[in-house]
Amino acid sequence: LRDLSHLRPRSNIIGCISRIRSNLAFAVHLFFQNLDFLYINTPIITKCNCEPDDEQFTVTTLLEKNYSKKNNKSNNTTMFDLETKNKNYPFKIIQQNYNENHPKNLESISYFKNDFFEDQVYLTSSGQLELESYACALSDVYSFGPAFRAEYNFTERHLAEFWMVECEICFADLSDIMSLSEKFIKFCLNYTLEHNKADLNYIANHYEKNVFEIIKNACFPYLRVNYTEVIDILLEASNFKKNFFKESVTWGISLSQEHELYLTDVYFKSPVFIYNYPKRVKSFYMKINDDQETVSAMDLLVPRIGEILGGSEREDRLNILSDNVKREFGINSEKYKSYLELRKFGTVPHSGFGLGFDRLVMLATGIKNIKDVIPYPRYPDYSEF
Amino acid sequence: LRDLSHLRPRSNIIGCISRIRSNLAFAVHLFFQNLDFLYINTPIITKCNCEPDDEQFTVTTLLEKNYSKKNNKSNNTTMFDLETKNKNYPFKIIQQNYNENHPKNLESISYFKNDFFEDQVYLTSSGQLELESYACALSDVYSFGPAFRAEYNFTERHLAEFWMVECEICFADLSDIMSLSEKFIKFCLNYTLEHNKADLNYIANHYEKNVFEIIKNACFPYLRVNYTEVIDILLEASNFKKNFFKESVTWGISLSQEHELYLTDVYFKSPVFIYNYPKRVKSFYMKINDDQETVSAMDLLVPRIGEILGGSEREDRLNILSDNVKREFGINSEKYKSYLELRKFGTVPHSGFGLGFDRLVMLATGIKNIKDVIPYPRYPDYSEF
Repeated sequence: LRDLSHLRPRSNIIGCISRIRSNLAFAVHLFFQNLDFLYINTPIITKCNCEPDDEQFTVTTLLEKNYSKKNNKSNNTTMFDLETKNKNYPFKIIQQNYNENHPKNLESISYFKNDFFEDQVYLTSSGQLELESYACALSDVYSFGPAFRAEYNFTERHLAEFWMVECEICFADLSDIMSLSEKFIKFCLNYTLEHNKADLNYIANHYEKNVFEIIKNACFPYLRVNYTEVIDILLEASNFKKNFFKESVTWGISLSQEHELYLTDVYFKSPVFIYNYPKRVKSFYMKINDDQETVSAMDLLVPRIGEILGGSEREDRLNILSDNVKREFGINSEKYKSYLELRKFGTVPHSGFGLGFDRLVMLATGIKNIKDVIPYPRYPDYSEF
Repeated sequence: LRDLSHLRPRSNIIGCISRIRSNLAFAVHLFFQNLDFLYINTPIITKCNCEPDDEQFTVTTLLEKNYSKKNNKSNNTTMFDLETKNKNYPFKIIQQNYNENHPKNLESISYFKNDFFEDQVYLTSSGQLELESYACALSDVYSFGPAFRAEYNFTERHLAEFWMVECEICFADLSDIMSLSEKFIKFCLNYTLEHNKADLNYIANHYEKNVFEIIKNACFPYLRVNYTEVIDILLEASNFKKNFFKESVTWGISLSQEHELYLTDVYFKSPVFIYNYPKRVKSFYMKINDDQETVSAMDLLVPRIGEILGGSEREDRLNILSDNVKREFGINSEKYKSYLELRKFGTVPHSGFGLGFDRLVMLATGIKNIKDVIPYPRYPDYSEF
């Protein structure tokens, strides 16, 4: 049915999922509004990149057939007017730039200066950095909106366009955000248990007979395990049986899906927070622990899905953050000047987390493929309707 | 302060606006959830365009410096691998495509087939068409998310990235959606009057002394005036004084901002619905009236701002809609096949409207520039932080 995105809501199962998704989204707002968090709309189009390793989409008007930036608003014949008249689009235009601008030492900057925003801009992969500037001014905040990753990824738990809930909490540490995020997920699940009984019964009878057990299992207390302990657990499993995991286990690796699912579905049989990751597998903005090797960060893994939520304390020491930015971004560090200024001009300790909302819908419905819990899934080669 | 988007929330006025914006957003969800509307996440990346005249942003991975679509997942040397190795980005790559693909008869389709989605895709300017497919399946629905227009526009009421609330109501006609949208706006304004008293007092004392009058004026009953009557009113004003309007008035024009503000601020001094517009200034999906010249559409204009909301009955007669699509899109009609199928495979009469959420924040705060009511405004040449 996935190729009939426009007609599939007429099926019972997509109807059930849609009603649950709608209630979960409302529960997100209810939870944070009840705690007096401010809802902030972080930007979708951005120059920055919160996670430098993520692949991003470029947003541009340079490839439009008849796009004229100055659109009747100027009588001078500009580059844009020339573009409009140019039939061999977009190749001629680009060749023309190529010849006229910097024929030898070509830099992207000269190319994008003719673009709508006069610079290369991207679809956001996270609104965290922008959210932090509101947290540092107005205390606790959250956002809920779309995010994007241009990964060539066909798994059952990845989308190129997905919805994310993020929050930043002042004066909170790692333990605080583990507690808050646990409460948050349980609040959403209980809301749907209360308001979608008929839909869940339908799913239990026709699609996933264990859906109520799946949800209830996510309502028990969550475990909290140190990354180092986790590596020991995984090593034990791989010592017990050769080639138990495809990817080898050693302290310092980023956990792959097979590791995550072993922990949640086989070993712990429960949602589990893993915390204090090695700093080199995590992001530049996370607070370094006193051991200098790990960061104060956590991921929440749940059975069948793996990672559903991740968070950290934010590095609030200007000198350390500044070094991290230089190491990470090199010549592009300039773009993060305003982020550093949040520390420079009066700051507070703060922490935050981000939830993959579509994965929460998977958890609350028992549906196995993320492409079935969002109305119009976007993934490589697919953007129908 | 606008150039310090990351620090300006530390000012009192941006704090007030942020708290009001957050409550208005929650009021949007409360209003529709109380009426049992389903919240639907319509896609941000789309091939379609609801308003064919809107300028759109293209979303692409073709301009990324080191983007490799197949990213280590294939050993064949593909186009993408060649791109990755290519230093003269993006010009060489494009020239290469130019030479290898269709050297004579170049079509955009051959260019974008190497893109992430194998086609040219855009940032949405409206989720209406996708929302309609959910309304036709699951009854009343709404959406609330970002929308985009690549207009080279510097006015105080336009953004390239803005937030929009849209809804579709089954078995509703034009009068129903005028009533519902009036209730909706008043509900949101009353919610903020109740929850943001201190913020509004601050605004009244320091920025806009009439803010309470502005809000109260939008809580009286709204007028409903036929487009034809409106043209008579405008003609009278322009006959009375030569060159009263810059743009001349005649039946069939699209109203410009000066016309709108004359109606709301001078003539009616009240919010006013204008309905039954000439079909050629409105969209292909709007229901044609029996006079064959006008469509069953309405815009809500409010003092100081102009248009804040627009809606229509949707054309549910397959043959008429099909003719409209062919006339409007020509060879691109194929893309709207699925929209037509909503009528083909069982349909219901339905109507809907869309609200510019940022303009609602302008109305509820008395703030004159739309760039000050959104955390990180995006407009031509500007995408900071």
